Amino acid sequence: MEREEWEEEFTEWFNDSISQGEIMDIQYPVKGLYVWKPYGLKLRNNTMDIIKESLEESDHEEVLFPLLIPRTIFQKESEHIEGFENEAYWVTHGGDKELNTDLALRPTSETSIYPMLNRWIRSHTDLPLKIYQIVNIFRHETKMTKPLIRLREVTTFKEAHTVHGSKEEAEQQVDEAVELYKNFYDELAVPHLITKRPSWDTFAGAEYSIAFDALAPDGRTLQIGTAHNLGQNFAEVFDLTFETYEGEQELVHQTSYGISDRAIASIIMTHGDDRGLCLPPKVAPIQVVIVPIPYSDEDVDVNKYAEKINEELKDASIRTEIDHRDISPGDKFYRWERKGVPLRIEIGPDEVKEDKITLARRDTGNREEVDRDELIPSVEKNFEEMYKSLKERAERFLEERIFEVMEIEKARDLLSERKGIVKIPWCGNEECGLEIEDETGGDVLGREQGVNEEMGECPICEKENCDPVLLSKTF
Amino acid sequence: MEREEWEEEFTEWFNDSISQGEIMDIQYPVKGLYVWKPYGLKLRNNTMDIIKESLEESDHEEVLFPLLIPRTIFQKESEHIEGFENEAYWVTHGGDKELNTDLALRPTSETSIYPMLNRWIRSHTDLPLKIYQIVNIFRHETKMTKPLIRLREVTTFKEAHTVHGSKEEAEQQVDEAVELYKNFYDELAVPHLITKRPSWDTFAGAEYSIAFDALAPDGRTLQIGTAHNLGQNFAEVFDLTFETYEGEQELVHQTSYGISDRAIASIIMTHGDDRGLCLPPKVAPIQVVIVPIPYSDEDVDVNKYAEKINEELKDASIRTEIDHRDISPGDKFYRWERKGVPLRIEIGPDEVKEDKITLARRDTGNREEVDRDELIPSVEKNFEEMYKSLKERAERFLEERIFEVMEIEKARDLLSERKGIVKIPWCGNEECGLEIEDETGGDVLGREQGVNEEMGECPICEKENCDPVLLSKTF
Repeated sequence: MEREEWEEEFTEWFNDSISQGEIMDIQYPVKGLYVWKPYGLKLRNNTMDIIKESLEESDHEEVLFPLLIPRTIFQKESEHIEGFENEAYWVTHGGDKELNTDLALRPTSETSIYPMLNRWIRSHTDLPLKIYQIVNIFRHETKMTKPLIRLREVTTFKEAHTVHGSKEEAEQQVDEAVELYKNFYDELAVPHLITKRPSWDTFAGAEYSIAFDALAPDGRTLQIGTAHNLGQNFAEVFDLTFETYEGEQELVHQTSYGISDRAIASIIMTHGDDRGLCLPPKVAPIQVVIVPIPYSDEDVDVNKYAEKINEELKDASIRTEIDHRDISPGDKFYRWERKGVPLRIEIGPDEVKEDKITLARRDTGNREEVDRDELIPSVEKNFEEMYKSLKERAERFLEERIFEVMEIEKARDLLSERKGIVKIPWCGNEECGLEIEDETGGDVLGREQGVNEEMGECPICEKENCDPVLLSKTF
Repeated sequence: MEREEWEEEFTEWFNDSISQGEIMDIQYPVKGLYVWKPYGLKLRNNTMDIIKESLEESDHEEVLFPLLIPRTIFQKESEHIEGFENEAYWVTHGGDKELNTDLALRPTSETSIYPMLNRWIRSHTDLPLKIYQIVNIFRHETKMTKPLIRLREVTTFKEAHTVHGSKEEAEQQVDEAVELYKNFYDELAVPHLITKRPSWDTFAGAEYSIAFDALAPDGRTLQIGTAHNLGQNFAEVFDLTFETYEGEQELVHQTSYGISDRAIASIIMTHGDDRGLCLPPKVAPIQVVIVPIPYSDEDVDVNKYAEKINEELKDASIRTEIDHRDISPGDKFYRWERKGVPLRIEIGPDEVKEDKITLARRDTGNREEVDRDELIPSVEKNFEEMYKSLKERAERFLEERIFEVMEIEKARDLLSERKGIVKIPWCGNEECGLEIEDETGGDVLGREQGVNEEMGECPICEKENCDPVLLSKTF
C-alpha cells in the first residue's frame, strides 16, 4: 500500500516539530529508538508527574520489577503469549556464551510481576493491592516506526496493576482507572474518546479492555491509554489465591492499565500548529521566555530590568528563561515559538521607561502591554486562558470530525478521505464488526463508554435499533 | 574457594535486612535480578533526589538514551569493548526472527551516547556539554550475585557524561564530580575513601579513574562511585570535534561518572545493626512512626490524640505514618525497627493526659518524654543528632579499620582475617602493585586523593620514601 499524502505530511510535520522543538533527537542508529533531549525530557517528566501524583493520591504504590522474563514464565498464559510472542525481543547470549534460558525484554509486565504476587498476598487484609511502575518496555514492531508513537523501546510505560478479592471490585477498579486517565488527559487539554474495545481487539489475556483515543490532524486516531479487566485468567496460571474473611482460599481478580510516551505525542499533535510545538502551560518545561531588546543609543538598562522580571516570575514558581543570546529578536521569537513556550515577554527601552512589559501568547499570537505590578496575575490569567482556549479548540476539532452515518459506503468514503471518526450502528456481533472493518477500511474502536443511544440498523445484518460504534483509521 | 564465614554472615544479615525491611523481594526467578518493593523504592527515590538536585544545580541536564546498542557501534572503541564484551547481554531475536544486527543491552552508555554527540556539538559555544541519565544497565555477572551490590540488571545507574574544549577543563570536571559525590555520601552519612585506581583497574577506555569505596561490616570494601577522565579516546573513535574560537576543528575531551544501586547498599550496610535497617532521616521513607497504645479501661482517646500528632508532623513536612494495626505494641516496635524508621512516637493514656509524647530513637534506643508544644523542634533536633551520631559512628568504624603496615606478611594477615583496609608503601610501579595484590590476596584501591605523605619502602622493589597505597578485600 502506498503511503497517503496526508499521512506523509503529518509525519513530516511531527518529526520536524519534535526535532526542531528539541524534544528528541530522532537519528539514533537503530530503527524505532530515539533520544530524549533535555527539553523534551522535562516535558515528559512534567507530564508523568501529573499521573504519578494522581496515582499516589488514589493509593497506588510505586514498585520496580526486572526487565528480563524467562521464556518459561513468559509463555505461561496462553492468550497472553499469543498476543505478544511475535513482538518480544529475546536475549540469548551473555558475552559469547549462550544462556540456559532465553530472556524476553518485557513487552508489558504481567508475566514479570504476577509470579511474585503469591508471596505478597496471603489474606483478604492484603487486598486490594494497587501498584504501578514507570519503566521501559520493548516491542519488535514490524510496521513503520515513529518517534513517541510506534517505538521499539517504549521509554515511558506507566503501568498499574491491581489485585482484588471480588469481580465487582475489579470492575470498579477499571472504572477508577478510566476516571484517572480522563482527568489526566483533561489536564493536558487533550480531548479523547473512551470506548470498550471489541472482543477481537481486547488485550491478550483480558476479559475486556477500555481504551482512550485521541484524534491526529491527519484524521487518524491514536490509542493513548488502556485499562484492562483481567478477571482470573492470570490468577489461575500463576496460582494467585487469598484467604477470605471466612477462611476459604479463593482466586484473586486483577486489572492492569497503562499509558506511554504516546501521552506526550498526544500533547504535541493536539496543540501544535504550523509554527511547531504549542505546549499547555502546566507541562511546558519553560512557561515564559523573556527576550530583552536593547537599543544601544537608549540610556536605559534593558537587561537589568529583564533580570528583575525574571526573578519575580521565578519567585512565583513560574518556569522562566531569559534569552541573552547574540542573535536577533526575530530569530529568538522564531526559535521559542518552535519550542512551544506558552508566553513570551518582550522588554525594550519603552517597557523599561514606562515600567511595563509586552506579553505575547504562543497559541493566538496576541500581544498585550501589562503594567509591571500586574505581572504575576496577568501571567497566571494568560496561562488559564490559554489552557481553556487550547482545550476548546481541540474539543471543537474532535467534535467536528465525528460523522454519524448509516451506510457502509459513506463510512468508507469518509475514512478513506481521512475526514475523521465514523459513528455507525452495529449489532454487537463479532462477524458484523469484522465485516464493517473489512468493507470500510477502518478499525472498530468500540462502543463509547457512558453513551447509550439507539442509532439504527446494523449495515451488515440489518438488525434494527442498534447502538452506535466508533470506527477510524488508526496509527 | 570456600566462602568465608564472615562473608556468609554478612550476606545473610544483608539479605534478611532488605527482605524483612521490605526494601526488596529477592526471590525473582532469574539470578541477579530483584524487585523493588514500595518502601524500598521510596528510599531509592529519596536518595536519588539528592544527587539529581546537586547535578541540576551544577548545570547537568537530564537526558534519556536508548538501551540497545548495535554490535558494530558497541565494538568501536577497542579498550572499551575489551572491558565489557564478556559481560554484555545480546539480543539476537525479535519474535522468532533473527535480527540483522545483534543488539547489546547497555552495560554503560558511552557507546550509545557518544555517536550522537557530533550532532549536538558544533562549536565552542556548545561546550561544555554536561548531561546525565538515570537508567537500567545490564551485566552478565558470572560471580555470585547479590541484591543492590552485584546485579545483572542494575536498576538505578546514574551516569553523567561531559564534553569539554580542553584537557584542563576535563580534569576540573572530574574534580567537580568527585566533590559532588563526596557531598552526596556525606549527606547519607556514609564515610568513604577516595582513591585514584591503579592503571590495571582503570575504566575501559579512560585515561584515569577516581573511585569511591565504603567499608562493609565484614571488612571488605564496596566501590560506590567512579569518575573517569576519558581524554580523547572516544572522541577519536566517534569523530567528536568542535570549532574553536579561532575557527580550528579540534577533538573534544570527555569525562563520565556514575553511581548505582550500591549507593543504597552503602546506606544499609553502613548504618544497619542486629535489629535490621537503620535509615538516616533525610532519606527514610517514613521518618516518624506513631504507635498509639490505648488501654480500654482508660477514659482518654489515644487514637484521636495520635491523629492530631500525625497531622502536626505532616504539616511540618515530616514523613509520618500512624500504625493502627491490630497487633501488639511490641510487635509494632519490632517491625518498624527492622524497617529502620528513625523515630518512634509512643502515645498511651499518660501521654494524652499530660499532653506530651514519648520519643524513641532507632539508632540508640534512647527514649525521652517531650512536651506537646516541643513536638516539631524536638523531632527536628533528634533528626539532626541522629544524623551526626550515625556519621560519627561510621567514621570511627572506618578509621579504626585502616591499618598502616610496612610488610607484605602483615598485610596478608590483616586482609585474610577481614580486619579492614591496609595502607602500605608502594613505588607506583605496575609490576610491584600486581605483586602486592598477588602476595596479600587484596586488591589495590589506589592512592588516596588529596593525601600526600611519604610512608616508607616499597615491600617489593624496596625503593625508599614511597607514598602509601590502599589495599582491601573487595566485593
